[in-house]
Amino acid sequence: MPNFDTLPTPCLLLDEARMTRNVDRLSDRARELGVTLRPHLKTCKNVEVAHRLTESPNPPVTVSTLAEAEVFADAGFTDILYAVGIAPQKLAQVLDIRSRGCDLMVILDSTAQAEAVVAAGGGIPVLIEIDSDGHRGGLVPDDPALVPIARILHDGGIPLRGVMTHAGESYGASGRDAQAEFAETERAAVVQAAERLRAAGLPCPIVSVGSTPTTHAARDLTDVTEMRAGVYVFFDLVMAGIGVCDPDDIAISVLTTVIGQKPERGWTIVDAGWMAMSRDRGTAAQAVDQGYGLVCNEAGEILPDLILSSANQEHGIISVREGSGAAMPDLPPGTRLRILPNHACATAAQHDRYHVIPADGGPEMPVWKRFSGW
Amino acid sequence: MPNFDTLPTPCLLLDEARMTRNVDRLSDRARELGVTLRPHLKTCKNVEVAHRLTESPNPPVTVSTLAEAEVFADAGFTDILYAVGIAPQKLAQVLDIRSRGCDLMVILDSTAQAEAVVAAGGGIPVLIEIDSDGHRGGLVPDDPALVPIARILHDGGIPLRGVMTHAGESYGASGRDAQAEFAETERAAVVQAAERLRAAGLPCPIVSVGSTPTTHAARDLTDVTEMRAGVYVFFDLVMAGIGVCDPDDIAISVLTTVIGQKPERGWTIVDAGWMAMSRDRGTAAQAVDQGYGLVCNEAGEILPDLILSSANQEHGIISVREGSGAAMPDLPPGTRLRILPNHACATAAQHDRYHVIPADGGPEMPVWKRFSGW
Repeated sequence: MPNFDTLPTPCLLLDEARMTRNVDRLSDRARELGVTLRPHLKTCKNVEVAHRLTESPNPPVTVSTLAEAEVFADAGFTDILYAVGIAPQKLAQVLDIRSRGCDLMVILDSTAQAEAVVAAGGGIPVLIEIDSDGHRGGLVPDDPALVPIARILHDGGIPLRGVMTHAGESYGASGRDAQAEFAETERAAVVQAAERLRAAGLPCPIVSVGSTPTTHAARDLTDVTEMRAGVYVFFDLVMAGIGVCDPDDIAISVLTTVIGQKPERGWTIVDAGWMAMSRDRGTAAQAVDQGYGLVCNEAGEILPDLILSSANQEHGIISVREGSGAAMPDLPPGTRLRILPNHACATAAQHDRYHVIPADGGPEMPVWKRFSGW
Repeated sequence: MPNFDTLPTPCLLLDEARMTRNVDRLSDRARELGVTLRPHLKTCKNVEVAHRLTESPNPPVTVSTLAEAEVFADAGFTDILYAVGIAPQKLAQVLDIRSRGCDLMVILDSTAQAEAVVAAGGGIPVLIEIDSDGHRGGLVPDDPALVPIARILHDGGIPLRGVMTHAGESYGASGRDAQAEFAETERAAVVQAAERLRAAGLPCPIVSVGSTPTTHAARDLTDVTEMRAGVYVFFDLVMAGIGVCDPDDIAISVLTTVIGQKPERGWTIVDAGWMAMSRDRGTAAQAVDQGYGLVCNEAGEILPDLILSSANQEHGIISVREGSGAAMPDLPPGTRLRILPNHACATAAQHDRYHVIPADGGPEMPVWKRFSGW
């Protein structure tokens, strides 16, 4: 196993103790709210992390690609929701994964998709996607097409499993009250849709909501059966920026090495560019713009005035946050730093492995492989 | 080999005929300008593409990571410039790659780095990085530290191979005249630095310049020995936006499938989100903002009024370009489209393979593997 002092840079660090704290926090919330937690594995894309998300060895999970479904089905997960609208061309692969003993469910919001699922045969179970906040896909809860689509499925021999929604707009809601409102928006939308289905004599066992902000802020999830979230496992600066977590909760960071200095410009140049951080600028629209990331020293202590202000492919430029009045410390070539990411999903996706900082403080750092692709 | 009709989406397409046209164009330019072309392989990260960039089976090349140096050294390339400032910790790996018969060169711009290269032993050859436009690293041509740093290297037994620069600011220069000015800025800076080294009795065999805009616009490269460029092999919307190429020259695109429609919002939802396109918004600051990409039909014909206006991880939202007055065509679930990328390096990096549309028009599509990491 690699040793911290000899890790090649840039590389992705995962702080096991912080991750465990984050995981426990949302598990506790699910228990308090009386719903099942169905974690979204698109953030971690890793089997070791997936096995630590609940107390169950085989919890219900969510995925964003069929590649994720394949990997996690092979790893023994048997209750998987593929939470991106199904394309007709992907149904053969869904059937193949299901044939290996995995209860893979799909989502849809149109007659064309419902007819395709019926035509595919094999009884692929379906949740109908509900649009609670205008963020992207889904039927609004009172859409006249809801019951007819459900009936196409039901009459076509498809197990109608229920309804789901995701308030993507909650990522722009700052503070717990605003996020709790989005949680209630999600709840109200799916509960209304579920009631319409049941009133039409159709089954609706699953009523599913979730996003990282709404699951942490929800005050009441009456009539909801499960909640989903992904980024909570690591958290990131976007979530810190809207108050869902503190920067000290962020469990992943990019370890980087100084490769140059431009004192006359106030720059320290590092080997973490956008290839290591991603191009995600999710904090650009927030109250505090963190550039491409917030700088920490090698030990992980935040240097609050330093941000990765710009990024080329393999170059990052660290500068002092505008208006802070701080001076750039002398960080000569070879100095190592850590950068906290704007968006955990995007930054982690730039890497093929996690170098795990073990919770027990031991010197050996396990390597957990990530996968990618579709 | 996969067939176009059954490719899983999203996936990365590479139009071989367009790539060959782009490659020939810059090769012709290098010949006209009387300089060697040292292609930058950070864009393609693929051996098949690398072997098609010049007529030579083993041309001089540029890389942005030691992972690239490893792969291309193993593939038989023996003249490699690692064009990111060297971190002292990476010198052992540089020596290891060199020990396998590859003449790997590094760049630096500080006394600390020069001393580290000398201390590493083994005679790692060095180019000194020159700052021609204030973009990131490098010494300005008249920096008093230039000759002393060169002397540390030379006196320490290090082969001083010369000077290099990259006018990264040229990506913001619209039109050939403005780009030609940046080309002259690059030329003037490295030639001045080379003259200072030679006047001090120091060797400077290589005088290296380059970026995709400047190599295509340069009018005269007197006293320059070589030019570097990377994105030219594929081109992208950022390059089209500043007039270096036409959108029809762009050789890579993301094949995607429609997964939903929101006619009331004018949206078509596809399975190419930022995971497939990257978060790069390089056209946001240009005269024409292409969102996350410009939409083409399945055959690759541009639909000029449609852009990928927003992106989630695995969802892309296509809408009509603001102000175009066009209507969203009916693109039902299952319809396939192609998206041209803002930034070829960033979009290609989200994929582990190219599905090649062969220049001979044959039905079989070779798969060329990309690599990633550091």
